[in-house]
Amino acid sequence: MSTISKLAAVHPCYGWDNQLQPELTVEPGVEVEIELVEASGGQIHPDSSVEKVTALDFAKINPVTGPVYIKGAEPQDTLVVEILGFEGSQWGWTAIIPGFGLLADEFPKPFLHFSTYDQQWVHYTPEIRLPYRPFPGTIGVAPAETGLQSVVFPRNCGGNMDTHDLTIGSKLYLPVQVEGALFSTGDGHAAQGDGEVCGTGIETPTKMRVRFGLKKAEKLAYPRIETVREPAKTERFYITTGVAPDLMVAAKDAIRYMIDYLTKEYRLSAEMAYTLCSVAVDLRISEIVDAPNWIVTAHLNQTIFI
Amino acid sequence: MSTISKLAAVHPCYGWDNQLQPELTVEPGVEVEIELVEASGGQIHPDSSVEKVTALDFAKINPVTGPVYIKGAEPQDTLVVEILGFEGSQWGWTAIIPGFGLLADEFPKPFLHFSTYDQQWVHYTPEIRLPYRPFPGTIGVAPAETGLQSVVFPRNCGGNMDTHDLTIGSKLYLPVQVEGALFSTGDGHAAQGDGEVCGTGIETPTKMRVRFGLKKAEKLAYPRIETVREPAKTERFYITTGVAPDLMVAAKDAIRYMIDYLTKEYRLSAEMAYTLCSVAVDLRISEIVDAPNWIVTAHLNQTIFI
Repeated sequence: MSTISKLAAVHPCYGWDNQLQPELTVEPGVEVEIELVEASGGQIHPDSSVEKVTALDFAKINPVTGPVYIKGAEPQDTLVVEILGFEGSQWGWTAIIPGFGLLADEFPKPFLHFSTYDQQWVHYTPEIRLPYRPFPGTIGVAPAETGLQSVVFPRNCGGNMDTHDLTIGSKLYLPVQVEGALFSTGDGHAAQGDGEVCGTGIETPTKMRVRFGLKKAEKLAYPRIETVREPAKTERFYITTGVAPDLMVAAKDAIRYMIDYLTKEYRLSAEMAYTLCSVAVDLRISEIVDAPNWIVTAHLNQTIFI
Repeated sequence: MSTISKLAAVHPCYGWDNQLQPELTVEPGVEVEIELVEASGGQIHPDSSVEKVTALDFAKINPVTGPVYIKGAEPQDTLVVEILGFEGSQWGWTAIIPGFGLLADEFPKPFLHFSTYDQQWVHYTPEIRLPYRPFPGTIGVAPAETGLQSVVFPRNCGGNMDTHDLTIGSKLYLPVQVEGALFSTGDGHAAQGDGEVCGTGIETPTKMRVRFGLKKAEKLAYPRIETVREPAKTERFYITTGVAPDLMVAAKDAIRYMIDYLTKEYRLSAEMAYTLCSVAVDLRISEIVDAPNWIVTAHLNQTIFI
């Protein structure tokens, strides 16, 4: 007898809607396995060519599986989502989608790249491997607003968070907005850098196991996360800086200089460098008080090069 | 016979000026020990009271030691600064300075806190210790512009970078603007979080050993850094999020919620929580492409609590 509730991606949702009927109802404490569709909603698969990127139907982007009704959850509560594990499909895609991404103006052409992965590494190329750090790009509870709400951007109750700290062992705290919380998730990622700069990570279909908990009458304004980082081997970093009075300008500059570095030092194409930034480079705010200039840094772990 | 050149902080400079006479001239490859004054320029010392914070003479803030003339350095070269080690004073201050910092409007009152440190830990309180990670807050070469230039904010040739990756073992690459590079540094820190949100880290007088190198005719737009991270013990993180269409708003929100967490969970005063964010919490850009909302996260390493 299995104590795991399972939810397959039979009826993907293309938005948040607090009027949707639950696909699954669970008690807090029960383990749930949820099937996560990748971000294209099945439009991209391992034998797709780059033409598929320009032909994407954006109405089918970022489907989520759910909603899951958590018994006892009420507005003003906090839903605790404990992320237990993943069973991935071992393939993922990364794309430059025209008009989308941090440097959209500089990368107008579509680009599509495939990776494979196992329990330890994402094999980005034969020479580049990233630690396998699976997480759901989109994870959240239904918003209080009625009607269909966009699933493309994150909001105070979660959504398309694209925050790679949400990996195995992490706990996500979400502010419940409606009765039952109506939890949904999707957009599987096998790895991603802070910022997801080209707009895509290692996009992958995967199953995810979670356990729900409730903190009654504990109201949050925004999601919070608890996570554990196990020390790995020594890591060497190459860091570029953007220095500007605007954080967005500084972030773009830091990524531009990282692309410049990757193309010169590692002979990557500009597209491979930009997408590698999206899946492996972390954006940090190093300095945000020495007016009028702030510093955003982009951190490349050089041990990804074999 | 010592092969180390030494430069004491005899004539602190309160700005960048490419017309200043060098205090020291060195060949590339020579080890140099430089005395770094702390950010108040001697105005704050271990027996100062909080009144000192409001009485600060801002004309004396952030003095740098130098300039050091590096033989052979010319505009269009890159100066490589290898950071070899520190000999710290074992005390440091952290302050909330009215009108300064990420949440200046919410923290209008002055606040002053002292820490001690050894080669391993900064003892922030008896219950809170931070890994000792010394670095120069201000480090750079003279700008091309003539006349006295502000030392308060960072610029393309370095300056008040407040970037804590510049610690022992790191290499900083700076774009040389004038003959001899005219390197200066100051603003010693024993620890700091990404962002330095209240405006001060663990401000400390310290000596720093560096070695200069040159990359001829290799022009950079902005500083770059190479650094190594040694694995420590397992670290547990508590992460708050700010979700907004503006990175600055999101950063402020993430820090607000971290202060909220620290005051509730660890019973810290708001001022101790805000300054702890400045010296120990890292700001990261987790998501910068899912328009119109970005996510800035604030990362607290919970293993700092003893």
